[in-house]
Amino acid sequence: MPDSALFPTEAFRKVLNQVVRDEGGALLQYAPVGGYAPLRRYLAGYLLRFGIEARAEEILIVNGAQQGFNLIARTLVDPGDVVAIEQPTYTGAMQGFRAAGARLLPVEWDGAGPRPDVFERLCERQAPKLFYCQSSAHNPSGLSIEPEIGRRLVAAAARYQVPIVEDGFDGSLHYGPRPGTPLKAADRAGIVIHIGTFSKILFPGLRVGWLVAPRPLVERLQAAKQLADLHTSALLQAAVHRFCERRLLERHVTRVTAEYARRRTLLLAALRRRMPEGVTWTEPHGGFSLLLTLPAGLDAAALLPAAVERGVAFTPGAAFFVDGAGQRTLRLAFSSVAAARIDEGVRRLAEAIKTVRRQPRPRRNEREMVPVV
Amino acid sequence: MPDSALFPTEAFRKVLNQVVRDEGGALLQYAPVGGYAPLRRYLAGYLLRFGIEARAEEILIVNGAQQGFNLIARTLVDPGDVVAIEQPTYTGAMQGFRAAGARLLPVEWDGAGPRPDVFERLCERQAPKLFYCQSSAHNPSGLSIEPEIGRRLVAAAARYQVPIVEDGFDGSLHYGPRPGTPLKAADRAGIVIHIGTFSKILFPGLRVGWLVAPRPLVERLQAAKQLADLHTSALLQAAVHRFCERRLLERHVTRVTAEYARRRTLLLAALRRRMPEGVTWTEPHGGFSLLLTLPAGLDAAALLPAAVERGVAFTPGAAFFVDGAGQRTLRLAFSSVAAARIDEGVRRLAEAIKTVRRQPRPRRNEREMVPVV
Repeated sequence: MPDSALFPTEAFRKVLNQVVRDEGGALLQYAPVGGYAPLRRYLAGYLLRFGIEARAEEILIVNGAQQGFNLIARTLVDPGDVVAIEQPTYTGAMQGFRAAGARLLPVEWDGAGPRPDVFERLCERQAPKLFYCQSSAHNPSGLSIEPEIGRRLVAAAARYQVPIVEDGFDGSLHYGPRPGTPLKAADRAGIVIHIGTFSKILFPGLRVGWLVAPRPLVERLQAAKQLADLHTSALLQAAVHRFCERRLLERHVTRVTAEYARRRTLLLAALRRRMPEGVTWTEPHGGFSLLLTLPAGLDAAALLPAAVERGVAFTPGAAFFVDGAGQRTLRLAFSSVAAARIDEGVRRLAEAIKTVRRQPRPRRNEREMVPVV
Repeated sequence: MPDSALFPTEAFRKVLNQVVRDEGGALLQYAPVGGYAPLRRYLAGYLLRFGIEARAEEILIVNGAQQGFNLIARTLVDPGDVVAIEQPTYTGAMQGFRAAGARLLPVEWDGAGPRPDVFERLCERQAPKLFYCQSSAHNPSGLSIEPEIGRRLVAAAARYQVPIVEDGFDGSLHYGPRPGTPLKAADRAGIVIHIGTFSKILFPGLRVGWLVAPRPLVERLQAAKQLADLHTSALLQAAVHRFCERRLLERHVTRVTAEYARRRTLLLAALRRRMPEGVTWTEPHGGFSLLLTLPAGLDAAALLPAAVERGVAFTPGAAFFVDGAGQRTLRLAFSSVAAARIDEGVRRLAEAIKTVRRQPRPRRNEREMVPVV
């Protein structure tokens, strides 16, 4: 999660207060299901920066990315359907599609993105209802899909008419010179549904996000949104809009990206310095975390108690894998750890790894599949 | 909808501003799915006034009543299931259960509530998954379920183990000396799920409502809520809580109930004065509307153009009927009509009725079923 110590709470308080003063009566009444019109128009311009061309009426405001998955799953997926999904992937998306009754088939990441050859084969043989992936600031790995891989995925999706659900929620939280390229930017066929949210770049507590899709699909998703909860609070939408319009979002993103980048750099340096041989990790291009892989024979879930004993926690990576793989992996989140504590945290984690490695382990029939990220 | 001219916008602006100042950082972060703890505790006390005993952990905060229906439908209803539903009823609830694949079977209202004998027969023969009804401020009729009828419905629900979904969203907007008695107040068996919302008594635009159910069911509904959108904005929940805690809700409800009661009285007087013979209507105990029944041979949908021509609109009643009945009925909403315009509106509607009645109509094979409300 983003670090609440970096929240621009005071600036937001002021714009919130102003919008209630200026148009409170209207904002507190029932509001259009599609979203607050000025915010939809603002997003159309905002997305252009990332190469996404969308008209305001192709954008649907939702309660964060999670509602986005949910509406898409309920609209496009029937029980028993196959859904193709990147692996590793965000746990919430997996749960959302599973709750709709989907059977998930993984498309493994290599360092450049989910493998297009695997995706193509899957399209050909399994006719999935959709393909879900994160194009930038990938959770858990922090990687982004390289533009060439993205183009191949989009081309395959168009050829097989399998919609791609692209979770591009925090493309602006990037640690390289430029943000990654969203798949939606390469989409000429109208086959990509892009999901975005203010949760990571601003405040999770707003529960304001958006979907971008061709108009006929937006209308179906809008009907699902109406059934789900009528509409997202117009008051919060208007406050976000005012915040963005005043260029406060850019200022905030610039400031926090610098701080998250600093934490990332400190984490990578500490890992290089402290980790025993055989431990590897991803180098995040964006987002809040990286994925670390333990040496063969170790299990992240078994390591957790030894780490917690030393005051360090992580998420065992198996949670991000569809098919039971990933036991040797774990997610290290750096977004909410103060810079001064990172090196010490890594030192303790390394110590836990060394301790566990020395312990004789009961032989188990464990899957030793190594993730390719 | 409530009249936004009566909104306590300025008072709300102040408490909103204060909660952001006091705890903005925490309120803008991810928050517990069940809801903002002080609001859940407040609601436990608030509901006691209506005779409902619930612990805070038996209350789940949702994005308005509509999300309540939706979570309940997705949790309890499978495609093809039978759902028993009062008739007439709120259109949004009908749509919500239908979207979950339910087959709706009506339990007709008479003046005192949905008929318990019909409900019992339906339980016995059709084993419905649940029964939906509005216990007070019924939309469209404005009636409430009489306590004795409520007790019979609850007893039957417990006997047949058919959960009652009670939409009791604005019990405090009542025009008699006392609010109606919620079914939940008579529920010893834990068979009633009570839905409430701040949409009608405060602001629709907040999208804050609640469910009350036994703990094991709340946990299932909470899991569905987590999948749907993680949680409801804690910022808005905290602002509502602060507003309530300062007793501003009571003050507001007292003020608007007096105004809505005045409009209701004017409407009833105008109907008595202006309507041609054969027109009947309900006398609302609460809520925002009444249901009017046209003389035999007239059709509300056919009347609408003649009314609109005269600058008066209504909702044809068929929308509130599950089984295609109700063509002779229409909903007159009085909540957002200024008192000074009510008599003139009724005069014009009466004129439209008289005009349409004089026109020769093509004979049709129409259903002449008369609703019992």
